[in-house]
Amino acid sequence: MTSVSIIGGSGYGGGELLRLLLAHPAVVVKQVTSRSHLGEYVYQVHPNLRKQTQLKFVDPSLIEPVDVLFLAQPHGRAQQVIEQYATLAGKIIDLSADFRLRDTALYEKWYGEKHAAPEWLGKFVYGLPELHRAEIASANYVSGVGCNATASNLALLPLVKADLIDLSAPIIIEIKVGSSESGAEGNTGSHHAERASVIRTFSAFGHRHTAEVIQEMGVKNVSLTMTAVDLVRGVLATAHAQVKPSVAAARKDLWKAYRAAANENPFVRVVKEQRGIYRVPEPKILAGSNYADIGFELDESTGHVVSMCAIDNLMKGAAGSAVQCMNLMLGLDETTGLEFPGLHPI
Amino acid sequence: MTSVSIIGGSGYGGGELLRLLLAHPAVVVKQVTSRSHLGEYVYQVHPNLRKQTQLKFVDPSLIEPVDVLFLAQPHGRAQQVIEQYATLAGKIIDLSADFRLRDTALYEKWYGEKHAAPEWLGKFVYGLPELHRAEIASANYVSGVGCNATASNLALLPLVKADLIDLSAPIIIEIKVGSSESGAEGNTGSHHAERASVIRTFSAFGHRHTAEVIQEMGVKNVSLTMTAVDLVRGVLATAHAQVKPSVAAARKDLWKAYRAAANENPFVRVVKEQRGIYRVPEPKILAGSNYADIGFELDESTGHVVSMCAIDNLMKGAAGSAVQCMNLMLGLDETTGLEFPGLHPI
Amino acid sequence: MTSVSIIGGSGYGGGELLRLLLAHPAVVVKQVTSRSHLGEYVYQVHPNLRKQTQLKFVDPSLIEPVDVLFLAQPHGRAQQVIEQYATLAGKIIDLSADFRLRDTALYEKWYGEKHAAPEWLGKFVYGLPELHRAEIASANYVSGVGCNATASNLALLPLVKADLIDLSAPIIIEIKVGSSESGAEGNTGSHHAERASVIRTFSAFGHRHTAEVIQEMGVKNVSLTMTAVDLVRGVLATAHAQVKPSVAAARKDLWKAYRAAANENPFVRVVKEQRGIYRVPEPKILAGSNYADIGFELDESTGHVVSMCAIDNLMKGAAGSAVQCMNLMLGLDETTGLEFPGLHPI
Amino acid sequence: MTSVSIIGGSGYGGGELLRLLLAHPAVVVKQVTSRSHLGEYVYQVHPNLRKQTQLKFVDPSLIEPVDVLFLAQPHGRAQQVIEQYATLAGKIIDLSADFRLRDTALYEKWYGEKHAAPEWLGKFVYGLPELHRAEIASANYVSGVGCNATASNLALLPLVKADLIDLSAPIIIEIKVGSSESGAEGNTGSHHAERASVIRTFSAFGHRHTAEVIQEMGVKNVSLTMTAVDLVRGVLATAHAQVKPSVAAARKDLWKAYRAAANENPFVRVVKEQRGIYRVPEPKILAGSNYADIGFELDESTGHVVSMCAIDNLMKGAAGSAVQCMNLMLGLDETTGLEFPGLHPI
Repeated sequence: MTSVSIIGGSGYGGGELLRLLLAHPAVVVKQVTSRSHLGEYVYQVHPNLRKQTQLKFVDPSLIEPVDVLFLAQPHGRAQQVIEQYATLAGKIIDLSADFRLRDTALYEKWYGEKHAAPEWLGKFVYGLPELHRAEIASANYVSGVGCNATASNLALLPLVKADLIDLSAPIIIEIKVGSSESGAEGNTGSHHAERASVIRTFSAFGHRHTAEVIQEMGVKNVSLTMTAVDLVRGVLATAHAQVKPSVAAARKDLWKAYRAAANENPFVRVVKEQRGIYRVPEPKILAGSNYADIGFELDESTGHVVSMCAIDNLMKGAAGSAVQCMNLMLGLDETTGLEFPGLHPI
Repeated sequence: MTSVSIIGGSGYGGGELLRLLLAHPAVVVKQVTSRSHLGEYVYQVHPNLRKQTQLKFVDPSLIEPVDVLFLAQPHGRAQQVIEQYATLAGKIIDLSADFRLRDTALYEKWYGEKHAAPEWLGKFVYGLPELHRAEIASANYVSGVGCNATASNLALLPLVKADLIDLSAPIIIEIKVGSSESGAEGNTGSHHAERASVIRTFSAFGHRHTAEVIQEMGVKNVSLTMTAVDLVRGVLATAHAQVKPSVAAARKDLWKAYRAAANENPFVRVVKEQRGIYRVPEPKILAGSNYADIGFELDESTGHVVSMCAIDNLMKGAAGSAVQCMNLMLGLDETTGLEFPGLHPI
Repeated sequence: MTSVSIIGGSGYGGGELLRLLLAHPAVVVKQVTSRSHLGEYVYQVHPNLRKQTQLKFVDPSLIEPVDVLFLAQPHGRAQQVIEQYATLAGKIIDLSADFRLRDTALYEKWYGEKHAAPEWLGKFVYGLPELHRAEIASANYVSGVGCNATASNLALLPLVKADLIDLSAPIIIEIKVGSSESGAEGNTGSHHAERASVIRTFSAFGHRHTAEVIQEMGVKNVSLTMTAVDLVRGVLATAHAQVKPSVAAARKDLWKAYRAAANENPFVRVVKEQRGIYRVPEPKILAGSNYADIGFELDESTGHVVSMCAIDNLMKGAAGSAVQCMNLMLGLDETTGLEFPGLHPI
Repeated sequence: MTSVSIIGGSGYGGGELLRLLLAHPAVVVKQVTSRSHLGEYVYQVHPNLRKQTQLKFVDPSLIEPVDVLFLAQPHGRAQQVIEQYATLAGKIIDLSADFRLRDTALYEKWYGEKHAAPEWLGKFVYGLPELHRAEIASANYVSGVGCNATASNLALLPLVKADLIDLSAPIIIEIKVGSSESGAEGNTGSHHAERASVIRTFSAFGHRHTAEVIQEMGVKNVSLTMTAVDLVRGVLATAHAQVKPSVAAARKDLWKAYRAAANENPFVRVVKEQRGIYRVPEPKILAGSNYADIGFELDESTGHVVSMCAIDNLMKGAAGSAVQCMNLMLGLDETTGLEFPGLHPI
């Protein structure tokens, strides 16, 4: 059994990691840290874990050497202490935004600050198996992924990989998100009485996850517009792009590209139905699952393509992809411990 | 025009008062206070008031003499400063719990503390017109009402007034509430990701509003069980009681009692339909309205009666009743400025 | 008093009209029709109208002459019987889509069918006062507006009117909507268990309301992408466009254009705050109100402008605009009977 | 591998069974029937099963012999055809209400109709392992459980088993439920625009599941009051009862009884915390899990005890208990295939 520990286990990402790792057949969870819930049973914070574990939160200073260390702290912490954590574990998976970008300048532009450990940026692999499966399998340090970036990247993946869209035209990505994205701490607008029933565009431009789309998709002219809706878990990214004029029989090419993405990736599914209620990718049925559902529509008269990707932000957009990376790093089947298919109805 | 001011205008009760008073044909709002939002436009906190007013929040120390002063502060403040406020206005309506109970011992039992101005308890009239219309009309000091107490009292009103139930048997009141009850500040469980989709019984016994039911209905053996559900505005109180054995043709007597309550009170309606979707009292359609919808079911084989009352906790359960009291105190028609009937669908 | 009747009063648009007209100081509601609820009290279908009226639904064949006739039937009915209705009332306001388009070809393209009364298309004025105030005031026949078209048109209005955007570049409008848009009948996906918590893109291209945006804004390269979210009332339209290269100091020009729209129209408000929870237009606080809240964000580095408009689809997007038109047609103040400002929280 | 088939796989109970059985390590799903979705892939109806199976719905007449046959049809069907199904499978688990009651008279009283196969009533064991574990293990025919009955029975179980409450006093059970209880077909009130944000008491007395509480708990004076709230999956039963006067140190006795229930049953947990957000049983975190969370509060001054039980109606209240029964019938560990612990947040 591989031993794992989690730094920062009381947040939503850490809690989801715990759920996955406690049930994972190949690992044993050794320690979980939380300063704010020190000494409490983890099930007192994550009530779904009652009768699953008797683990208690410990202080981060008490963390012991382990095979794989997961970091699930708020942004900015990991880069301060990465050197120390590297002495505790040969393999580190960091769910925060600290080591997602390869380029210091890109980091500084989008995060508006100097990076505390720029020499480590190059040591990490971006933790999305659908983009970096082979590198992850041989990596010791893997970053997490931004949930909105992941939905965007997987929406664009078939289009970019098959070279179907005009990258000089603007790519407009509209993203709708649930309330778990704001983290367990929430914010002033998170009070249920203010947050229920919203359609609230909290960021028209400039969301930090844009940097991950630029880096991973090689696109430049791209914007993410973020809108909060009444949902807890889930993200839908809707990318508006322009197919290349040279693309003949675009609909057929698109189908081919989307099917290829689904065939090559166990957690990618194409959703494009002519009947029933669920004809397009939707996040609600993905709660707790690691799937990314993708689909598209094309206006042949204009070449305007709409590509959609739905994920659970805490799974494929955070803890699920992290465990998928761990599986690859440990030489396990990529899907181990990630079999839960989601619920219907929900 | 009658001049009015509001102490504590940034909370939900204060905001609802503002909405009502700004549109009220017989009053002019002079000042609104808020320490936490000092200097801000009231519409920055209550966005529904944009284009309705250019008022800004002022410091409570700057409040000037006025005809009617509304107090809408958190519990415990009004009793500290009531003497001072009494010098500023001949008529005071206090929405807080400070002056709802007539009996110091009852206050101490349910609030677990000494009252800071016990001599004022006797000067206030309990501000529910359905119970104290005449007294309110001639009062200078009127208390607010507890929202849960109001739903409970109006559910029991027809039964108690017509002497239909056995008061020696336990009265069990189950109350379901929305998230605006926790106030604009919220609490640790108010984060949308934790509060959405809940059925959360946060108080099985001992809710403070029980004291108002005991006082106003003259019942002793009564309990309120409080459950939070996914809704912003609204309360449904469901009272389980036992009809007296002597009650002949109980169903007919019950109809008579409920119809009487509706006939005597402009904001009380009986809802008991055999068809359609809305057959029983429901809070959702009452958002923004001052109505209290009441209804009942009787199990003739056991004498078990279920009496329901639905209200908007911020209206009939707070600001609406307060304005209704103001109307009575000013000799206006009781319904002035309270005509909004609610929305369907919502 | 002006006499009015409503054909089709059991749907959501008809119910909202009823609420507004019953409380309107200058009109009296004479008759309301419904075939499916014949003989029922209107409050049995619209429970918010209990204690507001004792009207019952009558058969459409019994409708009598009246000053103003409102048509609130499903699409396709009004064009069949417009000649007959014109004999009953000098003024007709049709909420359906039947007479919104001026051009037969445009109608046929977007509705995929022949129009049954093409000669009437030219007799109707498009019923959005913000675009056609003067014409409406002197019109006898006024159409309703598409709710999504209205949110789109008012989002684009300041940009188009001030000639700020490049009309040759694609205009991408992302629209999020609540469940009341599907009408009182709903559809297979409307079951709460399927519809709750959704982010469901039910139309990527080709929504019929696009035709109203093309006609009213004079734009050609425009698409509407429709996504259902968990909300009952409300629409948010987010228009992505490109400012003209020639626009100097675009942000200043934009502010000027948006302020002008708000100044010229009593129901338009600019929402663009630096603090607080409600910084951008949001539909939730508009439930029951006739306001259209507009706002924008500009990326100066690319000229990409995001313009937002939030409305209540049943008010500004249907019944509210219809009553506003009636006021203009009757020479009344435009805002009469439309004063309800919406609720906070909700 | 044990072969299983499902009659009635397009409903919510059938879909949940499918999810569980497709992932179950000891069984293989052979056939699934649906008349309304004949020939469709099961994932077109249950989109969470995409990439899980290529099964298509077949006609019930084509069903072949199998080890275990699950019946998941609407009430009334199974009793018509039980003889025929008994020729196809040695073991039958019927999720419907047809074979839950042992007594024909009890059935006729609560269902208001003659039973079509009364001789079969005695052949079935009531399918709640917490009450009939040993009998189920040796049974060939096991009934399903009513979801509301299950929440009620498990709320009462510790009290009744330890003989702590006065069975001559009324037991009032208040039950709050989500929208999946109305089945995949829904009803007139299920439209999202009508069903969202509700607190709707659709049955004050007389719910059919009451019969299962009477039968299984041996109580007579019991009522179930049903209220729909805004949630898809989940039930909370809150039972109000009176502890016996003879119960010394009632709180201690209660703790003992509840702990015993949790110790004896792998899917029962006691939830009674002094801190954190989740202090009492709540259904939302149980979505997809087979747990029943129980808890209590006692008013020592009156002996009034409130006992709560939260479950997922489609799991512990339907498909989960059915699979748990199958495990017992097959000699497997009771928890096989039922390990999913639920999600937080959700």
